[in-house]
Amino acid sequence: MNRILNSETLNNIGKTVRISGWLNIKRSHGKIVFLDLRDRSGILQVVCGQDMAKDLKEEDVLDISGEMKKRPERMVNLDLETGTVEMEAKEIKVLAKAQTLPFDLKDLKVSLPVLLDYRPLTLRNQKISAIFKIQEQVVESFRRTLKDLDFTEFQAPAIVASATEGGAELFPIKYYKYNAFLAQSPQLYKQILVGVFERVFSVARAYRAEPSVTTRHISEYISLDAEMGFIDSWEDLMDTCEILVKRIFSDIQKNCQKELKLLGAADLKTEKIPRLKMREAQEIIFKRTKRDVRKEADLSPEDEKEICLWAKENHSSELVFITHYPTKKRPFYTYPDPKDPEYTLSFDLLFRGLEIVTGGQRINEYEKLLKNIKKFKIDPKDFQFYLQAFKYGLPPEGGFCMGGERMVKQILGLENVKEASLFPRDMERIDQRLSVAQPKKKNGR
Amino acid sequence: MNRILNSETLNNIGKTVRISGWLNIKRSHGKIVFLDLRDRSGILQVVCGQDMAKDLKEEDVLDISGEMKKRPERMVNLDLETGTVEMEAKEIKVLAKAQTLPFDLKDLKVSLPVLLDYRPLTLRNQKISAIFKIQEQVVESFRRTLKDLDFTEFQAPAIVASATEGGAELFPIKYYKYNAFLAQSPQLYKQILVGVFERVFSVARAYRAEPSVTTRHISEYISLDAEMGFIDSWEDLMDTCEILVKRIFSDIQKNCQKELKLLGAADLKTEKIPRLKMREAQEIIFKRTKRDVRKEADLSPEDEKEICLWAKENHSSELVFITHYPTKKRPFYTYPDPKDPEYTLSFDLLFRGLEIVTGGQRINEYEKLLKNIKKFKIDPKDFQFYLQAFKYGLPPEGGFCMGGERMVKQILGLENVKEASLFPRDMERIDQRLSVAQPKKKNGR
Repeated sequence: MNRILNSETLNNIGKTVRISGWLNIKRSHGKIVFLDLRDRSGILQVVCGQDMAKDLKEEDVLDISGEMKKRPERMVNLDLETGTVEMEAKEIKVLAKAQTLPFDLKDLKVSLPVLLDYRPLTLRNQKISAIFKIQEQVVESFRRTLKDLDFTEFQAPAIVASATEGGAELFPIKYYKYNAFLAQSPQLYKQILVGVFERVFSVARAYRAEPSVTTRHISEYISLDAEMGFIDSWEDLMDTCEILVKRIFSDIQKNCQKELKLLGAADLKTEKIPRLKMREAQEIIFKRTKRDVRKEADLSPEDEKEICLWAKENHSSELVFITHYPTKKRPFYTYPDPKDPEYTLSFDLLFRGLEIVTGGQRINEYEKLLKNIKKFKIDPKDFQFYLQAFKYGLPPEGGFCMGGERMVKQILGLENVKEASLFPRDMERIDQRLSVAQPKKKNGR
Repeated sequence: MNRILNSETLNNIGKTVRISGWLNIKRSHGKIVFLDLRDRSGILQVVCGQDMAKDLKEEDVLDISGEMKKRPERMVNLDLETGTVEMEAKEIKVLAKAQTLPFDLKDLKVSLPVLLDYRPLTLRNQKISAIFKIQEQVVESFRRTLKDLDFTEFQAPAIVASATEGGAELFPIKYYKYNAFLAQSPQLYKQILVGVFERVFSVARAYRAEPSVTTRHISEYISLDAEMGFIDSWEDLMDTCEILVKRIFSDIQKNCQKELKLLGAADLKTEKIPRLKMREAQEIIFKRTKRDVRKEADLSPEDEKEICLWAKENHSSELVFITHYPTKKRPFYTYPDPKDPEYTLSFDLLFRGLEIVTGGQRINEYEKLLKNIKKFKIDPKDFQFYLQAFKYGLPPEGGFCMGGERMVKQILGLENVKEASLFPRDMERIDQRLSVAQPKKKNGR
């Protein structure tokens, strides 16, 4: 079935064509009824008589044959995407009936929980679906850019036998007669594959059993992971990350104008990204705000916002790299700075006040890695498989991962990362609210 | 870092260049040593003196500077990819040391369990890594073809609140204080999204707690899922599937010649694919073999092999569509054939004796679907979220899913689907054998 709006639309004036889609709005004006028919290409106004439209309701699925016409001059200033054309219906077939909607789908004014409770319906709102065209473009640009840089794409597993990064917040799985967990990241697998393909990436699913509900966290998220070997310096990683983010931004500017406009999103600028050590960032924050965070081991969400303001004011950049996080705040595989081993060759990329990428160089020497695993009080036996990659020669390497939903949230200025996930999962929700769906379990154990 | 072999390789004769990679093989001939250096582009022979090479071992990671030379005439018939060039080393730097290998990595003769136990190492064998370049191409062609057909890509969730298809073989997750499972497929989500984008696809992860070990099953697999609305007939789905599979095959023929040759894979031919009802297939099998399977509710693996032989002999096709599986053997959402409701508007695509795609039209009318859910003895309350898509109008639609690893297995003629998975999971394995990694658990509960 053709799109309602296509390259032939304007050539079809005077011809009879067949289109199909959802009834977006029905407006009656005396004997004449205006039907806005919606499909993936946009909206077309269809004109018909009362008799043809009398049983039609919003979200009914229609198949309409009719004549394409130029719209009367006085109507073209209406804000319809079809601009100057409309259809005069000759036949309307109902492909599927819709029940009465629980709220106005076009002018959507519902709370986030209701928005998500009715996700199959609310996703049909054009502003909401536009979010996921942006997400699709982010993922596509991520892949395309890295393929152009000679990276190999791989499919990461999500069932793992032990805690990959030695952390908590894991979801346990009953795996036949064994214990298993949902992967927190494809980290160990991408490092293993540096030994095979040198440069790899994956669009993976990652899982965090976040014990609280915030606007920045979801339990299942899109992890855009990249890893590269034979680096000359850990700064190669930031260079690659910078190329990647700029390409994602320029692709969105180029291909998603309609969506950006619908959502009222700000332009994406791509200046040279400033790079600051965490300790330097803390000094700047102290000078700007008199809040003394100079002894903190990490940046708080408030700090991240402040340093982004600084970057914008001083470097016209909405992005800023923060480097050299403390060794004790990074996972066991992070490379300590040879000049100052209390700090690591690691970085975060902040964008409009939020961390969207985290990365760094990894320890690639087998003996050194083994020592660090023990230092972190992890059992090397749990990492025997992973350690093979290093035992049999792995070049200097590193990588980074980008949170897919966070990236979209920041591009569009959404309030909550859940808005950037098609079907977000959190403590209280898998599709529906769990306390409603599994009421007996709630206080049961 | 540049690839060892690139478009400049032949122009570099007489020049000094720097390359890096793994020591694939070291061969000593008196005072001269030949080092084959391997990277993602191939293998280059490096010549050096005994003194420079004396501490080098296979899989050491090297950074070599040297002069590119034409190889002596008498040597060019050696089966090296570099053909007519070699390097005379001036300086060899060791980037990372390898321990002694547990087996010959080049001439790999190990059992499947050992191959998988040592996956981080065995993936470096060129024949093994080639399998995953084919997998990458399958996934890429799947996406590219569907994007060209105006499908929208989406990211499917894998944590679900209830058994999606009413079946067994689910992995339970401890999800905060609730019950959850790993998704058996992104089926329900892709149907919901037909209501939003009309045509959608996803490269998803799917999970089956297969209670036995076979050559066709893995616990976590790549599900290449597509779904399209506004179909005029369920045969539109097979038409799309046929376009897709042919495009995957032609892309592989075009882009993966090196890998196909390395693996000794047969050519992929793409004749018109015959379409047979399951009952017709059973008649043919009976006529050909005298095995009477005409009353069976499904085809056995043996039947699938036999009907593929028939298709090859009678239609020169290595692919065959089998349609109209019995209603009771398909999930609740499958559309019954209006002419014969005991059978469904469903299909499998068999390739070289194995099912690689399964699909069909879905019930899109709300009342009919609700009735079918009850008929299948499923609680509609578990599907409230999904049912919204139908309550508010969903067009006639259907789709299919392709097993990513099975596709690769069949293209390459591999014996076991596990060979086509980077890190296969089964009853007894997550990376390592679980009975070795979690010995206490084995008889513990």
